[in-house]
Amino acid sequence: MTCELVQRRLDSLTKPPGSLGRMEEMLVEYARIRGAEPPARPRAAVYIFCGDHGVVAEGVSAWPSEVTRLMAMNFVAGGAAINAMCRHYGMDAHVVDVGIAGEAVDGVRGLRVANGTRNFALEPALTLEQARRALDAGAEVAGEAARAYDLVACGEMGIGNTTAAAALLCAYAGVDPAEAAGAGAGSDAAGVTKKVEVLRRALARHPSREAMDVAAAFGGLEILAIAGVILGGARHGLPVVLDGFISCAAALVVQALEPDALRCVFYSHRSAEKGHRLMLEKLGARPCLDLDMRLGEGTGAALLIGIFQTACRIYHEMATFERAGITKDAS
Amino acid sequence: MTCELVQRRLDSLTKPPGSLGRMEEMLVEYARIRGAEPPARPRAAVYIFCGDHGVVAEGVSAWPSEVTRLMAMNFVAGGAAINAMCRHYGMDAHVVDVGIAGEAVDGVRGLRVANGTRNFALEPALTLEQARRALDAGAEVAGEAARAYDLVACGEMGIGNTTAAAALLCAYAGVDPAEAAGAGAGSDAAGVTKKVEVLRRALARHPSREAMDVAAAFGGLEILAIAGVILGGARHGLPVVLDGFISCAAALVVQALEPDALRCVFYSHRSAEKGHRLMLEKLGARPCLDLDMRLGEGTGAALLIGIFQTACRIYHEMATFERAGITKDAS
Repeated sequence: MTCELVQRRLDSLTKPPGSLGRMEEMLVEYARIRGAEPPARPRAAVYIFCGDHGVVAEGVSAWPSEVTRLMAMNFVAGGAAINAMCRHYGMDAHVVDVGIAGEAVDGVRGLRVANGTRNFALEPALTLEQARRALDAGAEVAGEAARAYDLVACGEMGIGNTTAAAALLCAYAGVDPAEAAGAGAGSDAAGVTKKVEVLRRALARHPSREAMDVAAAFGGLEILAIAGVILGGARHGLPVVLDGFISCAAALVVQALEPDALRCVFYSHRSAEKGHRLMLEKLGARPCLDLDMRLGEGTGAALLIGIFQTACRIYHEMATFERAGITKDAS
Repeated sequence: MTCELVQRRLDSLTKPPGSLGRMEEMLVEYARIRGAEPPARPRAAVYIFCGDHGVVAEGVSAWPSEVTRLMAMNFVAGGAAINAMCRHYGMDAHVVDVGIAGEAVDGVRGLRVANGTRNFALEPALTLEQARRALDAGAEVAGEAARAYDLVACGEMGIGNTTAAAALLCAYAGVDPAEAAGAGAGSDAAGVTKKVEVLRRALARHPSREAMDVAAAFGGLEILAIAGVILGGARHGLPVVLDGFISCAAALVVQALEPDALRCVFYSHRSAEKGHRLMLEKLGARPCLDLDMRLGEGTGAALLIGIFQTACRIYHEMATFERAGITKDAS
């Protein structure tokens, strides 16, 4: 009902019907998910889920695990790219620790499930119970966010998480590791070769392709928390804007568990990370932004929220044909 | 020099080098064009050039010519999509009449070259002298804008101008009319067939492929004015953000006249208008935005300026690795 109301208003505005393309589609989708007209000034936030990865012990990342903690501190201090973007777009930034290795970080919300994941080259990253708790942490966040915000972006930080995301792509979509592994945060060719080799070993070690088994085998506490936000977002009518390779891996988890829940998702950008193209194909997604970004943190998602804010402004402020006195048969 | 300074600062910020992809490239390009570091709050404006097209008499448009005038009035009243976007992004909107048919419109800047173009299915749209004056009008605007703004977007309004832009694509790039003609502001299949037929006749009637002959034969006073902004932008070190099918046709004019001038151009979005893909190929351009927009007015260009503003904010506000105490060998 609300969708049709939104569509009718869009068609009454002084522009050829549909000529704002996917900006119009976003507004209609918003109404479908939220059951409400797009607000003039949408309240938005990005949730940055942070967690560490035992598989870093295999040498799959160009950066040491402790950078996860240092970046979480940087988020709290407001010094990261996503912080500048949140200030620019008037969005709140929430940093959530679902499994940073070591001590809790001051100023970070603690929903810690484990002290980082285990090395999935040797053993499952998480127990089934831990995987469920990470999903629940995300769903809890979505429930709160649905009361405080009109839509949210999901971001993440976790050294090693492109390897976990690639493992999920291989396991859920049957993609070969050589197609799924990319440079991540700056691996060279030897580093990528190493990732492929680790992925092959790990996929053979964890042969079950049952949805929760895969989620627990390869983890990513931050990835499962984002999957939980999507599951909770669908339940609470909260639009969830996904970022790049890592948050789309969370969408793969949801696709395996409860595909209908993906109805609350907006995809934002095509990442430069190699496997993202195949991931988007598997999800049937076509993002609006193509900026070769590969930072994470929710930076691509934040850009899409900026575009959505603009679309809301247009929706509320444009003149109608009637007011402007324009018709096709003007003469 | 300034480019290298900008690149060095980008590489010092707390993110993997290059991970903001084309946002980083835009900042470096800005410095190359402008000879200055990106400002924290770039001053930006959109110039909306308006003009009418005699070829509308052939029945190539879903809307009557007088809608150009009515939309110019709508721009002045602040009711169009581009106005809402300008308010959202803190950009100025300038409406420039380079050839609206009929009386001058109150509140619109008059740089009128002709009372609309002539019907290019029957005769050249413009004389060579008129075509030159339209280019000069744009160059004059660029000179003023280079003093008042850090970068500008070009937009346009002109019923019939997708037909003129398609003609320029055919003439400059050797594209077949069936590949160049699209739905414009809402033509149905019969309307598109009519456009193709009119284009075939017109291309045969005006056989010269010399750069200025083509520009005058098919015109678009607003298209040539935008070409003039690009030429002037290159002279004055002003970055010029182009919109979709119509403003890229202006880039084709520049490519034929003075290809080096395209160095000051940012391409913004892939339009849903059919011929735009081929036009972008001919220009070697790869826009960042893929939103199926086909409105014109500079709406796609305004979105890219929004992204550029965000990039500037990131550039100035992010912490450096040094300040955040992060190194690759942290442990």
